[in-house]
Formats: sequence, structure tokens, C-alpha cells
Amino acid sequence: MTSRILDRADLDFLLHDWLRVGDLLDRAPFAEHDRETIDAVLDLAEQIATERFEPHNRAADLAEPHQGPDGRVVLVDGVREAIEAFAEAGFIAASVPAEHGGTGLPFTVARAALAWFQAANIGTASYPFLTTAAVNLLLAHGTPEQVEAWVPGMLEGRTSGTMCLSEPQAGSSLADITTRAEPQDDGSYRVIGTKMWISGGEHELTDNIVHLVLAKIPGGPAGVKGISLIAVPRYLDDGTHNDVALAGLNHKMGYRGTVNTLLNFGEREGAVGWLVGAEHGGLTAMFHMMNEARVGVGMGATALGVTGYLHSLEYALTRTQGRAVGGRDVSTPMIPIARHPDVRRMLLAQKSYAEAGMALGLYCSRLVDEKDTHPDDGARAQAALLLDVLTPIAKSWPSQWCLAANDLAIQVLGGSGYTRDFPVEQFYRDNRLNPIHEGTHGIQAIDLLGRKAVMRGGAGLELLLGTVRATIDRAGEHAEHAAALEAALVRIEKTTATLHATGDPDVTLANASVYLEAVGHVVAAWIWLEQLVVLGSRDDAFATGKRAAARYFYRFELPRTGPWFDLLDSLDTTTLEWDPS
Amino acid sequence: MTSRILDRADLDFLLHDWLRVGDLLDRAPFAEHDRETIDAVLDLAEQIATERFEPHNRAADLAEPHQGPDGRVVLVDGVREAIEAFAEAGFIAASVPAEHGGTGLPFTVARAALAWFQAANIGTASYPFLTTAAVNLLLAHGTPEQVEAWVPGMLEGRTSGTMCLSEPQAGSSLADITTRAEPQDDGSYRVIGTKMWISGGEHELTDNIVHLVLAKIPGGPAGVKGISLIAVPRYLDDGTHNDVALAGLNHKMGYRGTVNTLLNFGEREGAVGWLVGAEHGGLTAMFHMMNEARVGVGMGATALGVTGYLHSLEYALTRTQGRAVGGRDVSTPMIPIARHPDVRRMLLAQKSYAEAGMALGLYCSRLVDEKDTHPDDGARAQAALLLDVLTPIAKSWPSQWCLAANDLAIQVLGGSGYTRDFPVEQFYRDNRLNPIHEGTHGIQAIDLLGRKAVMRGGAGLELLLGTVRATIDRAGEHAEHAAALEAALVRIEKTTATLHATGDPDVTLANASVYLEAVGHVVAAWIWLEQLVVLGSRDDAFATGKRAAARYFYRFELPRTGPWFDLLDSLDTTTLEWDPS
Repeated sequence: MTSRILDRADLDFLLHDWLRVGDLLDRAPFAEHDRETIDAVLDLAEQIATERFEPHNRAADLAEPHQGPDGRVVLVDGVREAIEAFAEAGFIAASVPAEHGGTGLPFTVARAALAWFQAANIGTASYPFLTTAAVNLLLAHGTPEQVEAWVPGMLEGRTSGTMCLSEPQAGSSLADITTRAEPQDDGSYRVIGTKMWISGGEHELTDNIVHLVLAKIPGGPAGVKGISLIAVPRYLDDGTHNDVALAGLNHKMGYRGTVNTLLNFGEREGAVGWLVGAEHGGLTAMFHMMNEARVGVGMGATALGVTGYLHSLEYALTRTQGRAVGGRDVSTPMIPIARHPDVRRMLLAQKSYAEAGMALGLYCSRLVDEKDTHPDDGARAQAALLLDVLTPIAKSWPSQWCLAANDLAIQVLGGSGYTRDFPVEQFYRDNRLNPIHEGTHGIQAIDLLGRKAVMRGGAGLELLLGTVRATIDRAGEHAEHAAALEAALVRIEKTTATLHATGDPDVTLANASVYLEAVGHVVAAWIWLEQLVVLGSRDDAFATGKRAAARYFYRFELPRTGPWFDLLDSLDTTTLEWDPS
Repeated sequence: MTSRILDRADLDFLLHDWLRVGDLLDRAPFAEHDRETIDAVLDLAEQIATERFEPHNRAADLAEPHQGPDGRVVLVDGVREAIEAFAEAGFIAASVPAEHGGTGLPFTVARAALAWFQAANIGTASYPFLTTAAVNLLLAHGTPEQVEAWVPGMLEGRTSGTMCLSEPQAGSSLADITTRAEPQDDGSYRVIGTKMWISGGEHELTDNIVHLVLAKIPGGPAGVKGISLIAVPRYLDDGTHNDVALAGLNHKMGYRGTVNTLLNFGEREGAVGWLVGAEHGGLTAMFHMMNEARVGVGMGATALGVTGYLHSLEYALTRTQGRAVGGRDVSTPMIPIARHPDVRRMLLAQKSYAEAGMALGLYCSRLVDEKDTHPDDGARAQAALLLDVLTPIAKSWPSQWCLAANDLAIQVLGGSGYTRDFPVEQFYRDNRLNPIHEGTHGIQAIDLLGRKAVMRGGAGLELLLGTVRATIDRAGEHAEHAAALEAALVRIEKTTATLHATGDPDVTLANASVYLEAVGHVVAAWIWLEQLVVLGSRDDAFATGKRAAARYFYRFELPRTGPWFDLLDSLDTTTLEWDPS
């Protein structure tokens, strides 16, 4: 049977036919790999996701992490084994260069492989994903000693990592964090403060946990310019428990397999830590990895969207109910619900969201590879610029629409979809986190409209539009779609200019979320046109399905943007003028 | 403190200023009541909802119904006491005529009162609501002996009722039910079959449960014309347990306080039951109550939307985070998040959905009163016709948009909203049932476009449009909104005609859901204009808030319908042509 976790045929199409990841293999960092190793990596990801991650996905949801009698965090059976298999197969180190002990895969391939784990069990996948993020941060900003101390254990799955940013009084507002790091004579720091929403903050899955903590070194600048990054291991080298205490677990609607904690640093004498990167350079270091992290959130949302689609598709093809329009003869057999147009609408909508999310996420991952490994300086800079512009969209668009896809997956299953006998309700609950973490929808909107759309005199947005127009130029027989897309680009240009011409930042940004959603839908339409162009005259069920989803998107979805642009062009101030207090 | 369950000021505005329920009190059935009794009923509903229903709402979610060691269904503490208080206060009988032992309130007032319980604890509210439905059905179709046997116990809360329609192989397709009712010489029937998704199907809250079961009497017509309604009590008069067995409990994502069961009738010798209403007239009897039941679902969705709005509003007014646009001085205090435009957008959207849902539900309830008690035959018929047309909208529109409201409530709270420390995530999970039960979204869409929009030569739709135009005529200073609404009405007329001119029912109905959503949004816009007209020149915080929500709806929401009508007018066949198999 074909997997219901992800659609391998789609991944192969996107990676090879579209993104031509094979071309990357000529570059030095990837020279050890070829098409066979890429296939083998994807095979292995599917196998481990299927055998080790998916089986305990529901169990981890039902028995969320809790503290046992000894205060230790208890997880369900299977999590440790899954993470061990993941680490052994080299996935923690999938895109880490070989010189650091990694597998050295192109980021694009690694991301595609990792999506299997997000779709199979996003709660368990979070643990090693956090560790990979810590590895990347340490490799980029740590001292050689720090790398040596922690990275090998991380790559082997013996040590895990966390990111400690938020605090109870400062969620999205990092400028207001109050955790402090006091320098000591021996060069170390003592960290004192409380960190909130820390995923993987405490567990017994690994021998040690290294917390990467944003804190303020006394005497530094106010606000975000005075934030430093401090590495605080749970256990010190001599085996003593550092002054980090679990202050509570968060009980969530979904994503329940991932333990989420409130941590107190320095309840006693101060938690021992070491500066990573420059003093007061913590936010820069952390945000160095932000594009990849945000694309990763979008990919998680997408993975849940795809698996929800595949589950509901299978259900719709096998569950019979009712008859075709006008068919009232109950002596005739009932038909599969996939033959009802409204069910097809819900399936096509899911497909159009989820496969666009996957394509967008992998496209952005390809840009990561370009910015990191393209031989030409200019090409690297261009890729970095385009990635900057696309990141808030690659994070938010799938978080919104693949959640909508999961909602439709439930609806396809009807009452059954609302029960825990089927997994779609869990996908929906799990996915609801994605518009919140790693910068909320509203934060991404301000990032796109307030920063990315105008940075470098608008060069980033111009690059995006030029890239889309290059696709339009190759649209060939898809002239109708190309024309609709070109019209939408003109609207983006006009609307962006109108919003930034107000001279009043409040008015410019009042409806930033609508802007994000409008540009996001246009980008998704572009992604669909790209896929149509690559399909060319291919004529099989795969191509037919893609064309149907693309047609759905152009007829049902892209037109939604018209009223959104109208609203933005009107400089509407409804939200500014209403005082709810 | 003002309640976060519902907004009493809004109810008073809708009931008195807008719907003038006082005018109903001149009619004989309601002559015993006056403004004071209406106020007292609403006060009492708020009090019991606050003191008896809300306190165990989360507990019932966390410890869902399960079978104890003796096989009996175990519910959390507080459910029984809540239902007893509800029954004692007369709410099971709220709109039952006094001659039958009821309170005899106008349906409009009863619905407003009942919304308090849906908002406070929709899971517990379901039990007595089901009983009320059974009472109404028995009063309309039962014999005097049946009424005497069961109704008094139901009104006192000693007996409860269920509706047993679906079967495992026949969810939305009642024509395909196979449960049979075999006539006995003594006039009774023996019922044999399995019923699925039966809410309140087994519990120890009441001394007895009367199941109202759709079944086929052998030899009757095929399909829906051969369905009869049989009353099957859990316990027979001699105290023996009837042949009804609990075959399993459904474990749901939300609405977990309501036990939902799979029931086997006649595992042994056949369950003893009695025919209610005419032989083969079961579906007619059941659907006699359908408009009220579907409006009730919409009201449940609305109640959850309102309470989610009120909870997120309170959070947004008290939680501080960040500073106004451009404010980077961390020495200044953080501002309440309600001052961020994007948070206001999310609050206004919720308000515009939830308050429109409440107004629409009460408007439809007023139509129930009109059709039942208006002294003029023609007026009664008109009210019934308008109610018929509005019912699929009153069911589906709040189910869709008040769920969207709950999604926004979570987003306003951010990470906190995603935890079980706050109730908004439960509202969201509970509300997700509403687009499914009592006829899915897709079923309502076919009902509206395929039946209601064209019944009696389109008289129902014409009446709806005429009613809206009467509001437009009174729009006064709201000319801009009136013009937008009139334009939308013209689109409804054109689109309806275009869809029904195809001559191909498949094409007509292919995108029925889009039609339902488009007409629903226009109806909501009308409801907002109605409220503006009634507000007149009122100038206080209540009126200002209403005007902001109305403005939001006309600027952000009504324009969404343009592309939906465009799609419908194009007779798009994307969903018909794609074969997903």
C-alpha cells in the first residue's frame, strides 16, 4: 500500500523534476552523494517514520508527558527508541557538513526527509529537531571547545538541545526579557531567570540537555541589543545537576508528545553557563537560524496537511454513503463518498494547500542550499534575499491553510473524523500550534510588510516578483493562469506602494495580516504554475491530479485575494479606530 | 464583573430593541408573561449556567464519560446537579405550552435563555436539550397515552430522551437504515438494529431514557418513505431492562461531556417499542422538529463563539505585551495587547461573527414564534417559509464562522490559548462538532440551493430578498452599506438563476457549499444592517462597539462574497471532473 504519511511520488517530483537537487551534487560539500544516496535517505526516512514514529503518535497524545513520583518527566514507550533510530540513521546530522561529523546532505533533501517524521509524529520529531537546531547554532557561533564539548553527543543523540527565548512576561516581546547572566571570574556566567514555553526542557531521553538561553548581561544596552546567548547544560561535567529546575509542564491542546516546560534558572546560586558568540550578540546568533527554523515550522504544518489529505482521501475512496445526485433507488449500491462533488471539493482544497506548502517549503530549502553553497557570490546573495522575503510566507501560509486542510479532512470523515478512532482530529489539534510558535501570524505579517517588503529599497520584493514573472514567461499553454497571476503581481506592487506611502506606520501596518495572507495566496498560485510548467505534457494520474489541484487553486483560491487587496488599498482604519476597552 | 459566558446587554438589545418580544406577550399563549418574567428568566439562566454548568465544564472535558466496572456510564460530578437545577427552574419546559405543564415562554426568549447553558457547558446542556426535543416530538405526534406516560417525567428531569437516527452504514443517508420494527399482536413493536452517534444514549442521570428510533416496518415502502418512529424506553413499566444494549462509547475531540454511544437494539428478543405518529411517517415527524433543532445547533456554535470572544477580550485588555508601532523604549511600560491593531482585528472579527450568529439565531427563533402563534394565517405561512429558507444558513453559518471566531480567540491568547489553562481551546474543540451533526455543511448546502432556493417557484428566496430589501429601505445614513448589500442581493438572484438554468443537477449542485457560504455572508451583512438601523443615534460604548463590528463586517467580510459568486456564475466543474480514485 502507498503510504498515508507522505506522498513519495510528490517528493520525487518536487526534488528532482522541479528543484533538480541533482545539480547540487556537483558542488564540493555534496560531492559524496548521488541520486542513489538521496533515494536511500528518503527510503530510510519513510521506513523509520513508519516503523518507529507513527506507531506511538496516538499514545503520546493520549498520555501526555507528566511528572512521575520522583518528579522526573515520563514519556510514553517508543519515544526513546524512535529518537535513537533517528540519530543512528544520521538524521540529526542530516544537513550538517561531513567535516563536523554530519551526513552533509543538501538542506533541500534533508528537509524532505525530515518531513516524514513531522507527518508521522510531530511531537516526537520535535526532540531531535531541537537538537539539530542547537548543533547548527553551536557550529555557527560556538567556540571550538564548545563544539567539541557538546556537538558530538548531540549528533549521536546522547545530548539534546533547547531554545530558551520566551519568559512569562515577555512572549513575543524579547526586548522585555529579564533573565540575567552574571559574568564570573572564571569566564563562565551565572544565569538567573524564568523561561516559558520551553519545548524539550526536561526529559530523560538523553544523558544531558544543553539549554541555549537568551539573557541579559548586566550593564549592557537596553532592549534587544543587550541580549546574549548562554549555553546552560542540565548536568555539568562533574555530573552535578546545574541550577535549572523544572517549574511546571504546559498542558496543550495538541502537540502533546512534546514536553513543554516552564524552567527556573538560578533558584539557588545561579545556573552555570557559557557565552555563545559575542556579548550582546545573542539575538543575532539566534536569528541567524531563524529562516531555517521558520521554514521548518511551515514544513511541519505542511506535513500534517499532507498526511491529513492522504488519510481523508483513503477514507473517501472506501467509505460508501448515499448515491449520485437524483439517485433515490435504495436497491442500488451506495457510492464511495469521493464521488460526491462536495467531498471532492474538500479533497482538492486539501491537496491544493498541502502540496503547495510542500513545494514552497522545499523551494525555500533549495534557497538555503543556494545561499550556503552556490559558487557565485552574487547568486548566494540573491538566494539569501529571496529567502528573507519568502520566510514569513513559508512559515505562515502553510500554518494557516494546512490547518484549514486538516479541518476539511475531519469534515470528509464526518462524525468519524471527530473521534479519536481516526487520526485526523489529532492532526488538526497538533497543527493549531503552528500559527503561534516561532513568531505568531501577526508577527510574520509585520515582518513581511514592515521589513521584508521594503528592505534594501524594496529589492527583496522586486526579486520575488521578478522570479514569479520568470515563471509567467514560461507558462505556455497556461496563459489564463499566467494572466491571473500577473494581475495579482500588479496588485501586490500597487498595494505595497500604497501602504508605505501613508507616512503613518500605524496605518501602514494596521492590516498587515491581510497583506501577508494576500501575498501568500499569490505565492501559492505561483508555486502551482511552476508545477504545471514542470509537468509539461506528462499524462498520468499523478499529472492529472496536479492539474486538478492547480485548477482548483486558480478558480477557488487566487480570486479570494481581490477583496483583500481592495481592503488594503482603501487604507482601512477600522481596527485602529475601535477602542475595545 | 460582567459575565464572560454571554453578553446580557446584547441579548436585551436583540430581544427587546430589535425583535420586540414584548409584542408577542399580547398573544394568548404568552399572556401570563411580561417584561419582568422575561428578565427574570434570563437572570435565572445566567445564574444557573454560572453556578451549576460552567464550574464542571473543564472537568467533564478532562474526564470524559466512560464505563465503570459494572458497565454503567460514569460522568463527572456536577452534571446531575446541573440538570436537576435546570429542570427545577423549568428550562426543559421553557417553551412548552402551559397546558402541557410547560413554562410557555415565547420560543425566542427560551432560545436566548438556553444559550447561556450552551456557552457555559455545551456538553452538559445537551442532555436536557435532547429531552426537550423528545417532549416536543411526543407532544406533536404521540398519542395522549404516550404523552401521559413520558412527558411529565421528562419535564421534571426524571426521564430523558434521545434521537436515534444514524446507523453505522448510514450516516447522512437515512434512506439506507436497516433497523427494523416488527409489529406484535398487542400493538407494540420489536425493534432490531444498531444505532450510531446517539448522544445521551446511556447514563444514570435519569430514572429512564426514552429512545426515539427511526426504523423500518417490514413490508413498507423502500427508502425514506418507509421509515417509522418508534419510542423505545430503556426500562419498561414493570422495571425490566428493555433489550437495548450499550455497544460502545465514542471518544471525541470535543463535546466530551456529552456521552455519545453505539446502541444495539434487540440483541435478544427485540426491544419493545411503540409507534409514534403514523406508520411510515417517521421521517416527517422527525423533520417536523428539524428547523428548531438546526437553529439550536447554530445557537450552540454561536454561544461558543460569544464566550470565546468575551474570554479573549478580557485577556487582551489585561495582558500586556510590547509597545505601539515604533515604540522600542523598553523603559516605557508594555501596553495591553488589545491596543495592537492585529489583536483588535481578531477581536472585531470574533464580535462580528458571534453577534451576527446570535442575532440570526434569535431572528429565526422569532420566526418560530410567528409561525406558531401569529393570529393571521398568512403571516404564519410567511414566517414558516422564511424560516425554511433561513434554517440551513442559521445552522451552517455560525457553525463555520463561530468556529473561526474560536480559532481567533486562541490566537489572541497565543501560547496560553493553546493550553488547557484557558478555556478557549475547549470552545474550539467543542465547536468543531457543529458543522457535522444535524446535517453536515454539505447537506445544508444542498438543502439551501437544491431545495429551499427553488421551492414554491422560488417564493422562499424571494421572501428572504424582500425582507432584506425592506431593511435596505430603512438604512438611512447607512447608505454605503445598503448599496453594498443591494449589490449582493442582485448577485444572489443572478447566481441562483444561473445555477438552476443549467438543466444538469450535477452542475447546479457541484459547488453548493460555496453558494451556502456566499448567501450566508450576505445574510449576516443584512443582520448587521438591521442592528445598525435599530441602534439609530444611540451613542454609548455598546453602540460604538456594534458599529465597529458592523463596519468590520462590511469592509472585511462581505467583499469576500464577490469571488464566490464569480465562481458560481462560471458554472465551474473542477470538482466534477477530477477523479481521485
